[in-house]
Amino acid sequence: MTINNKVDINADLAEGFGRWPLDNFEEVMKYVTSANIATGFHAGDPEIMDKAVACAKENNVGIGYHIGLPDKRGFGRRQMNITVNEMKTDALYQFGALDAFVKVHDAKVQHVKPHGILYRMVYEFEQYTEAFLDMVKSYNPDLFIVCPANFRAYEMGKEKGLKMVAEGLPDLSYDVNGNWVLERRKEPRSPQEVADRALSFAKDSKIQTVDGKWFDIKADTVCIHGDSPTAVDVAKTTKETLEKNGLTVCNYFEMFK
Amino acid sequence: MTINNKVDINADLAEGFGRWPLDNFEEVMKYVTSANIATGFHAGDPEIMDKAVACAKENNVGIGYHIGLPDKRGFGRRQMNITVNEMKTDALYQFGALDAFVKVHDAKVQHVKPHGILYRMVYEFEQYTEAFLDMVKSYNPDLFIVCPANFRAYEMGKEKGLKMVAEGLPDLSYDVNGNWVLERRKEPRSPQEVADRALSFAKDSKIQTVDGKWFDIKADTVCIHGDSPTAVDVAKTTKETLEKNGLTVCNYFEMFK
Amino acid sequence: MTINNKVDINADLAEGFGRWPLDNFEEVMKYVTSANIATGFHAGDPEIMDKAVACAKENNVGIGYHIGLPDKRGFGRRQMNITVNEMKTDALYQFGALDAFVKVHDAKVQHVKPHGILYRMVYEFEQYTEAFLDMVKSYNPDLFIVCPANFRAYEMGKEKGLKMVAEGLPDLSYDVNGNWVLERRKEPRSPQEVADRALSFAKDSKIQTVDGKWFDIKADTVCIHGDSPTAVDVAKTTKETLEKNGLTVCNYFEMFK
Amino acid sequence: MTINNKVDINADLAEGFGRWPLDNFEEVMKYVTSANIATGFHAGDPEIMDKAVACAKENNVGIGYHIGLPDKRGFGRRQMNITVNEMKTDALYQFGALDAFVKVHDAKVQHVKPHGILYRMVYEFEQYTEAFLDMVKSYNPDLFIVCPANFRAYEMGKEKGLKMVAEGLPDLSYDVNGNWVLERRKEPRSPQEVADRALSFAKDSKIQTVDGKWFDIKADTVCIHGDSPTAVDVAKTTKETLEKNGLTVCNYFEMFK
Repeated sequence: MTINNKVDINADLAEGFGRWPLDNFEEVMKYVTSANIATGFHAGDPEIMDKAVACAKENNVGIGYHIGLPDKRGFGRRQMNITVNEMKTDALYQFGALDAFVKVHDAKVQHVKPHGILYRMVYEFEQYTEAFLDMVKSYNPDLFIVCPANFRAYEMGKEKGLKMVAEGLPDLSYDVNGNWVLERRKEPRSPQEVADRALSFAKDSKIQTVDGKWFDIKADTVCIHGDSPTAVDVAKTTKETLEKNGLTVCNYFEMFK
Repeated sequence: MTINNKVDINADLAEGFGRWPLDNFEEVMKYVTSANIATGFHAGDPEIMDKAVACAKENNVGIGYHIGLPDKRGFGRRQMNITVNEMKTDALYQFGALDAFVKVHDAKVQHVKPHGILYRMVYEFEQYTEAFLDMVKSYNPDLFIVCPANFRAYEMGKEKGLKMVAEGLPDLSYDVNGNWVLERRKEPRSPQEVADRALSFAKDSKIQTVDGKWFDIKADTVCIHGDSPTAVDVAKTTKETLEKNGLTVCNYFEMFK
Repeated sequence: MTINNKVDINADLAEGFGRWPLDNFEEVMKYVTSANIATGFHAGDPEIMDKAVACAKENNVGIGYHIGLPDKRGFGRRQMNITVNEMKTDALYQFGALDAFVKVHDAKVQHVKPHGILYRMVYEFEQYTEAFLDMVKSYNPDLFIVCPANFRAYEMGKEKGLKMVAEGLPDLSYDVNGNWVLERRKEPRSPQEVADRALSFAKDSKIQTVDGKWFDIKADTVCIHGDSPTAVDVAKTTKETLEKNGLTVCNYFEMFK
Repeated sequence: MTINNKVDINADLAEGFGRWPLDNFEEVMKYVTSANIATGFHAGDPEIMDKAVACAKENNVGIGYHIGLPDKRGFGRRQMNITVNEMKTDALYQFGALDAFVKVHDAKVQHVKPHGILYRMVYEFEQYTEAFLDMVKSYNPDLFIVCPANFRAYEMGKEKGLKMVAEGLPDLSYDVNGNWVLERRKEPRSPQEVADRALSFAKDSKIQTVDGKWFDIKADTVCIHGDSPTAVDVAKTTKETLEKNGLTVCNYFEMFK
C-alpha cells in the first residue's frame, strides 16, 4: 500500500520538436499529477517547454526535468558512451533550461526523471549512479528523484538523504526478476488493463510478470507513456480506476508533505 | 569620459564546441573584466560552459549570457527569420542553461549580450527590440544589457528602467554614421592599435571612422573578440594602455555600484 | 491545357525524422506520380529516405530531391541568410545523399524541388537563381526542375536548356498577382475543393485568386502537401477528378518523352 | 614487406566544421597519398568537403569516405548503440554526400575508412562487420576498404572478394596482442619517431608494442592523424623516411593495379 493511500500518475510529455508534435500534452495533463517535461536534448524545444510549463502550472501538475541523451534522431533511446562529466554537465544544462521557463511562469520544479536509455544508464551503471545523485544533491537537494524501488540507486539516494520516489511502469511488461522490459514496440494494452496494473502497484505493491507470477515492488507513482496513441484514454481510465478504489491521486508535493 | 574614470573590457569567450576549441579563454580572462559566455546555440557546450563559469569566478570576471541563433555551422552569423516568440524562448532557454553552472559554482550573472547577427536583429529590428527588453526585464531586471549607445534600443532600455551598458567595438571598423561594419574577415589590427582605439572610446567618447573622421559615441565597455589569434595580446595591451592612461578597468558591478 | 492532356501530381513526402513521423507516404504514393523526398536537412533521415525511395520505385512514382535549409526545428521554413556557395554545396550534399539510396535500389532520380522558404529564395532572389540553375546543370542536366511558370527563374532555366516543369499549388491560396500565399496555417480546403482547383490548373491553365478573379498560369504538375491530415484523401480525390475529366496523370518521364 | 615495395600514407582530413577548422588539409595533402575525408556526421560540412575533394584531386591524393557516427560534439568517438540498419543507411547517406562533390570535380572515390569508434564497431563487433562489408559490396564492389590485417573483418572481406587494404597506425601505441590503444590524449611522438614506426610497418611488417616486443602485422598503408598540431611535419618526415629507404609512396589505385 502506498503512503496514506496516495498515488501519483506521471507521464513523459511535451516530446515534440518544431514541426513534429508527438503527444497531446494539454489533454493528458488533465488526468496526470506529474509531468516529465522533455528538456530539449532527446525531444522538446524552447517553445514547447514554455507551453508545457504553463499548462502544468494551470493544471496543478508537478513539473519534472525529463533529461535525455543528446540524440534527437534516436529519441534518447540509443545508448551512448558519454563520460561521467558529460552526463553531469548535460543534466545541469537541461535543468537550467527548464528552470528558466519555470521562473517566468512563477512555478516550481518538483522532480527529475531521466529519459529512455539514460534512465537505465543512470540507475543501473555504477559509474553514473553516484555521480548523478550527487549532482542532483548539489543542484537542488529538495528535488524528488523518480526511480524504481528495486534498484540499488533507490537505496543509495535514501542514504544520501535524497527524496526518492518509487516508480512502477504499468504499461510495460516486467520479467520474473522485476525488471521492466524495454520494448522497441510496446505491447498493446487496453486502457483498462493498464489501469488495473496501476492499481496492483498502488493497492498491493505488486505487479504481474510476463510468466503470470506476482512480483513485490512498491510504487509511489505509476508511469503512463504520453507518446502512445491512447495516452489520453489511458490516463483518464487510470485516474478513475485508482480513485474508484479509494486512492487519492496527487503529486509528490502533496504526497510527501 | 566614462563614469568615474572606469571602463570595462568584455570579450566573447568559450566559443568552442566538443573537439573544436576556438579561444584560449583561460588566458584571456586574466585581462578582461567581463566575459560573454557562449550558451550552446551558436557555440559552447555544457562542459565548456562549466569550465568558463568556474574560470570567470576565479578571475573575478563578470559573467554574461552570450546568447545566439540556433546555428552552429553558421556560428550564429547567418540571419534567420525567427519569430519574436522563438527569439524570446530561445533566449530564456539559454539564460537558464548558463544559470545552472552559475548556481553550482555559487557565482552570479552580471549581464547579457546577444551574439553575432542576433545582436543586430535584437537592437536594430523593431519587431525584436521591445520584446527582447521586456523578456530580460521579466527574467531578471537587475541584468546589465550590453548595447551600443547610439541605438534606439539603448534609450528604450533606459526608459524601461533597465541597466544599459554602452559598448564600443575598437577591433571593428566604424562607418561615417557610427555603425560598426560586420566583416566576414576582420581587418587585421595590431594589439596596440586596438588598445588605442579602446582608449579613444574610454577617454574621449569618440571613435575614428573608416574615412578618418571622429564620431562621438560613449562606451562603458570595450569589446575584444576572443576568437582572434592575437586575442590574449590584444586583451593584455588594452588593459595596460587603459590603466597607464589613468582609467580603472573593472566590471559592471563595480562600475555602477 | 497541359501537354497532350497529361498532368502530374507531386507531393512533399517522407518528412518525418527519427521517432517523429509526419506523413503516411506509403499511402500517398498510391495516388501521386512524383514524390519530393526530404533529404535530411529540413526533415528526413537515412532510414526514411531508404524506405521512401523503395516505395517510390515500387509505385512507379518519380523520385525528386526535396532539398531544404539546414534547420530541422524550423522545418526549413525560416529564411536564413546563407551564402550562394553554402546554397550550392548544401544542395550538392543533399543530392548525393539521396542518390546513394537511389543507387542501391537501382532506381533513377527524376527531378528537384526546393523545400519551404528555399523554394522562394532560389526562385525569387536573384543572387541564388542563376547559381542554383547552373549548379543543377553541372550536376545533372537531365534533371527536371519544378518551378512556377510565372517566375523569371522558369524562363531563365529554359534559356539555359534545362527541363523546367511548371507547378501549380491548388491547396494554397493565390493573390491577385498570381503569387501563392505562404500560410503558417493552411486554409482548410476539402479534398474535392483542392481537386477542383487542380483541375482548373490542368484543364484551363487558370487558378482562382483570393478575390475571386482568375489568373492565367500553366501547370504541368499540381502539388499536394503530404503533411496535411487529409493528404491521402486529397491525393486520391485529385487523381480521380483529373482522370474523370479526361486527363492522364503521369510523371515527368512519361509526360515529356 | 609491402607489395612491390609500395606503401601508402593515409590521413584523416577535413575534420573542421563551420567556423571551427581542425586541420591544415591543404598542406598535409602535399605529403600523403590517401585522404579520409569527413562526410559531415562526426565532422566536415558541404563547403569543407567540396574544398577537400578539389584539393585531393589536385594533389593526386586518393579520396576516401571517412564515415562517422552522427555525433559532432563527441567527434564520433563516443560509442552509440545504433542498429545495423542505422549503421548501413547512415553510411550510404554519407557515401552519396561525398560522391556529389567527387562528381562535380570529375574525380573518383578510392576507398572507405570508418572514423573513430565506428572503426572499432564495424571491425570488432560481429553484428556490424558482415553487414558493413555487404553494404559496401552492394554500393561499389571496387572500393578499397581500409582495415587492420589482424582483424577477422580483413579475412572476411577477402573471402567476399572485396579489396581489403591492411592498415598500420604508427602514431598510436600497440598492446602486446597487436591491438592499437585508443587514447583520449595521444602519446606525444616526434615526427621522426612516427616515421620510423611507419618504416617498421612498411619494411618489416612489424610494430613495436608498449612492452618493447615486436608484433608481426602487415600494412599496405600507414595512418597519420591530421588533427595533431605536428601533422604536416609528421606527414613530410614519414614520406621522406619511407622514400629514403627505398619504398615507393603511392595510393591504392597505383599500388594494386
